[in-house]
Amino acid sequence: MIIKPENTIELKNRFGGKGSIFSSSYIKEQDFEGIRKVLEIELEAHASIGYHQHIDDSEIYHIIEGKGEFQDSDGQFKPVGKGDCCVITKGQSHGLVNTEDTPLKMMAIIF
Amino acid sequence: MIIKPENTIELKNRFGGKGSIFSSSYIKEQDFEGIRKVLEIELEAHASIGYHQHIDDSEIYHIIEGKGEFQDSDGQFKPVGKGDCCVITKGQSHGLVNTEDTPLKMMAIIF
Repeated sequence: MIIKPENTIELKNRFGGKGSIFSSSYIKEQDFEGIRKVLEIELEAHASIGYHQHIDDSEIYHIIEGKGEFQDSDGQFKPVGKGDCCVITKGQSHGLVNTEDTPLKMMAIIF
Repeated sequence: MIIKPENTIELKNRFGGKGSIFSSSYIKEQDFEGIRKVLEIELEAHASIGYHQHIDDSEIYHIIEGKGEFQDSDGQFKPVGKGDCCVITKGQSHGLVNTEDTPLKMMAIIF
């Protein structure tokens, strides 16, 4: 089955972050056993996703394009770029900052 | 936790396909509960992954860059490009052909 990108939504100040992110949802909770969501997300220049906790699920931010700082489960900001895979597991928290003048693109996989 | 790209391996004629693919493994079976593997895969120009069955797991090919043809679970070849999410579930088969003179890049998520 091929799922095309559609329904891109703009989210402002996501989890208390700055600016806008654009989120395209491919897979939702009820679609396939074993995976909850697959999204393609773009953070506009200098936008961020605020630090937030995942109580009942785990998430991967896999960076496709751009550079930024991943706020890890220890609260520390760590530099990330294209090809980096940022993982948190149930109960942990995370956030992401686009530090550049260009968009940061990533896949978000919630499982 | 940030997992950096490493251990990129070249696989020739994968599942009977043509040419070489380059696979970077981020997450393996035993790493995190709920997801089996996350890979970043590049198919060189005109390379392909042969049609093969997934007996015990499901897989997503999410196209990041390039164009090709996804051989779906019905055996049909269907055009795909950047932003397309190709899903098969347990018991189904799939393959992928890079139809272009440039690399095709994708995320492979096995769950």
